[in-house]
Amino acid sequence: MSFTLNQLALETGTVVYGNGECVIDSLCCMQNAKPGAIGFITSEKYAKYLTNTEAEAVILTKDLLELSPVPALIADNPRATYARITSLLHPNPVPKAGIHPTVVIDPSATVASDACIGAHSVIEAGARIDKSVCIGANCVIGRDSCIGENTYFYPNVTLYHNCHIGQHCILHSGAVIGADGFGFEFDRGVWIKIQQVGGVRVGNGVEIGACSTIDRGALVDTIIEDGVKLDNHIQIGHNVRVGAHSIMANGVAIAGGVKIGQHCLFGGMAGVKEGVEIADNVTVTGMSMVSKSLPKAGSYSSNIPIDGTRSWRRNSARFRQLDELAKRIHQLEKEVQSLTS
Amino acid sequence: MSFTLNQLALETGTVVYGNGECVIDSLCCMQNAKPGAIGFITSEKYAKYLTNTEAEAVILTKDLLELSPVPALIADNPRATYARITSLLHPNPVPKAGIHPTVVIDPSATVASDACIGAHSVIEAGARIDKSVCIGANCVIGRDSCIGENTYFYPNVTLYHNCHIGQHCILHSGAVIGADGFGFEFDRGVWIKIQQVGGVRVGNGVEIGACSTIDRGALVDTIIEDGVKLDNHIQIGHNVRVGAHSIMANGVAIAGGVKIGQHCLFGGMAGVKEGVEIADNVTVTGMSMVSKSLPKAGSYSSNIPIDGTRSWRRNSARFRQLDELAKRIHQLEKEVQSLTS
Amino acid sequence: MSFTLNQLALETGTVVYGNGECVIDSLCCMQNAKPGAIGFITSEKYAKYLTNTEAEAVILTKDLLELSPVPALIADNPRATYARITSLLHPNPVPKAGIHPTVVIDPSATVASDACIGAHSVIEAGARIDKSVCIGANCVIGRDSCIGENTYFYPNVTLYHNCHIGQHCILHSGAVIGADGFGFEFDRGVWIKIQQVGGVRVGNGVEIGACSTIDRGALVDTIIEDGVKLDNHIQIGHNVRVGAHSIMANGVAIAGGVKIGQHCLFGGMAGVKEGVEIADNVTVTGMSMVSKSLPKAGSYSSNIPIDGTRSWRRNSARFRQLDELAKRIHQLEKEVQSLTS
Repeated sequence: MSFTLNQLALETGTVVYGNGECVIDSLCCMQNAKPGAIGFITSEKYAKYLTNTEAEAVILTKDLLELSPVPALIADNPRATYARITSLLHPNPVPKAGIHPTVVIDPSATVASDACIGAHSVIEAGARIDKSVCIGANCVIGRDSCIGENTYFYPNVTLYHNCHIGQHCILHSGAVIGADGFGFEFDRGVWIKIQQVGGVRVGNGVEIGACSTIDRGALVDTIIEDGVKLDNHIQIGHNVRVGAHSIMANGVAIAGGVKIGQHCLFGGMAGVKEGVEIADNVTVTGMSMVSKSLPKAGSYSSNIPIDGTRSWRRNSARFRQLDELAKRIHQLEKEVQSLTS
Repeated sequence: MSFTLNQLALETGTVVYGNGECVIDSLCCMQNAKPGAIGFITSEKYAKYLTNTEAEAVILTKDLLELSPVPALIADNPRATYARITSLLHPNPVPKAGIHPTVVIDPSATVASDACIGAHSVIEAGARIDKSVCIGANCVIGRDSCIGENTYFYPNVTLYHNCHIGQHCILHSGAVIGADGFGFEFDRGVWIKIQQVGGVRVGNGVEIGACSTIDRGALVDTIIEDGVKLDNHIQIGHNVRVGAHSIMANGVAIAGGVKIGQHCLFGGMAGVKEGVEIADNVTVTGMSMVSKSLPKAGSYSSNIPIDGTRSWRRNSARFRQLDELAKRIHQLEKEVQSLTS
Repeated sequence: MSFTLNQLALETGTVVYGNGECVIDSLCCMQNAKPGAIGFITSEKYAKYLTNTEAEAVILTKDLLELSPVPALIADNPRATYARITSLLHPNPVPKAGIHPTVVIDPSATVASDACIGAHSVIEAGARIDKSVCIGANCVIGRDSCIGENTYFYPNVTLYHNCHIGQHCILHSGAVIGADGFGFEFDRGVWIKIQQVGGVRVGNGVEIGACSTIDRGALVDTIIEDGVKLDNHIQIGHNVRVGAHSIMANGVAIAGGVKIGQHCLFGGMAGVKEGVEIADNVTVTGMSMVSKSLPKAGSYSSNIPIDGTRSWRRNSARFRQLDELAKRIHQLEKEVQSLTS
């Protein structure tokens, strides 16, 4: 794929500076630029990489424009413009057109005429595959589930029955959507399964990482709203609602019944306890454990700073004495008080 | 599926109050009841939802009976009765009967005549699939492994060679049973693999969540006893034994050689260090790290409470001074002691 | 498989003591020895298991030799010799020779004549499968990816496009290599995807556990050097470099752009924050969070010791007062100072 700078400006709503007919065929970072490639800088700090750059063009804000020795796109958010250009130059890899002859499709399923389905995938009864959907090899689409336009499944994705995936989504390999929520009731020494009768509803523009799991609801659906981005190994429990445009790094686990607002950010390996409610615009830093509701926007944390193991061992042993130490401080304060008075 | 209340009473060993011929075809929670559905209440606190309820029937304890305006099932544990009814109304989804023509079965494998096997699954040499087993699409059953009666595999499950799964188990998509335990010996700068020669033995009535992994033993089998329930992304290391009816929430990791008693509960993302032994009836709360054996029943924890990041930063910086602070308290106590005496 | 002790000595570079013609056909631990089997002891502490042992032979260091009532291999590192023998007696399980007729291979792919490929696997355009590679059932090998000699894929592995796996590697089921790195840019309320244009390069002798994920790079490749061993549920983010012979236990997550030295060890569920650099020979203990670079070899930790939940609750509540407690200690010191002077 290649574009002139003028074409890229048109596609990204930016303004060209210099020769708009120069041809861009690749991406680069400015520290490691090369002919034909476009990169970006976000502040004057990186302006040094512009001098003598081999990049074909650069994306920058208006105020840095005069520093550029090469053609440029002028953008309010150069990084976002760069992001949009990555998808122009490198669209999702398209599998071979059409439906591979080894695909097994139940006669009651509906598959759009332009859908691509890779070898050995299975489309079960009543499923619906909309226009321009691409499904990789070895996927399984469960009974009565549906997949919206332009959504892309990499190989080895499993979509259980009665689940709905929106438009323009990307699901990576190993993702499992719609497995049973973890619901059991203890009775006379054994755990009785509570069948999970709800489904999963995923909105538009959602990306779901490799080996991530979104469980079906107990009675109602688990819901992932539009624009949510989930990294790998994410767990979304039953009856959870994840608000639009929230984002989670690898290994985040959201227990059952949690409600998460819009535009939240979760660092890697953060966890949220069952039933918790989290407001819009909450950030939870990596490996933190949210054990109570967070009704206010803001950043929250709960881990321990890294330290040499020997030093950590001394300090962490004291953790178990913290309450006692606090009481001794209080006692000292009383004694010193009586000595001074 | 639908049942009269009398039929449900018979199946669950409970007693009918009111019209036993009313027909139940669905489940509800009492806050959101609807005609045809059955729900439950567990205490007087929820009795308000009984007034004017649209539910067809309700499950409750005897003492709450007179509050019910609709037919009822009288149960010692209403939630457990409800759980049992979920499986009557919603049995596991049954794949199409029989063995799909695309399934590859080694001639030396044994498959019960009434087993269901989904498209593109593979049954390797010497494997044994017992009566009424259902295997979803794209599963792989390794050499000489066997699967007990009425066990259900969702699509994309991998069972390695020489592993045994009991009866009435459920394995969710992406689960991997029998991968090599993580055993290496360091010698002259490189890690030498220790072949993992044991297998995995899973008891009856076990549920294993999506993308969970149970490693094969080094010399002997890794063992999961009857009735264990594992959520998604669980890791069970080699040579572990998990006692009957223990239960683990998402992301729990049990390192090699750990022995866990019966009826233990693990909160999400808890970890257990290699070789640790845990008694019966131990609870480990979410994101806790069990670094030593727990020979006594009880509840154990080891994490940090969530806090605003700014406040957390101040406090966590002090964590690295804890030992020093404790010593300063001790010193103060000595000085105050000498001042007062 | 069986070998004489002389053959095992030859293969492992060790010296025979006693009858070198005795035949070894299995492995044992010395606590549980049996005829035909070979075990090992590493110190005098375990010498008691030698008396009356039923083992056919034992591996030990020279100084323990006279304690052995059975034939022996004399080795500097008995455990490493044992490890090497496990692979002689139990080589990787070999799938049926050849390429199963259900395998789908693009005409532009290159497959070595002696490769084994299991049922329903898919080899996409331009892929290259080298000599003596074994690929299990239901694997997908993406466009233009290649797999080096003697590498072994268990079933249900997904290798995306443009990824390179070295020689003598083992990939376990559910592993996903080459999914998109987690790169987005926030702009006017939504997250814009940054296409991930790099690939993944895995060196020789690498083992990758079940359900582990290694993301492709944003512009350049994610790199796993020779001899790295990754357990299950590992996450390696985009543009990471993992140095040779480093090893990670279950659930470790390495965020994007991290550089890890050689011979590092990561305990289970440890995490490393994006962009961090870690020196050679660093050990990070289980469930620790590396939030800053570690430029010096050594052992590092950051978690909390397990405790009874009641006691933990008291102490962890104090964690949120730590900074205040430290200030009160400082105040007390000043007051006591003025009292004593």
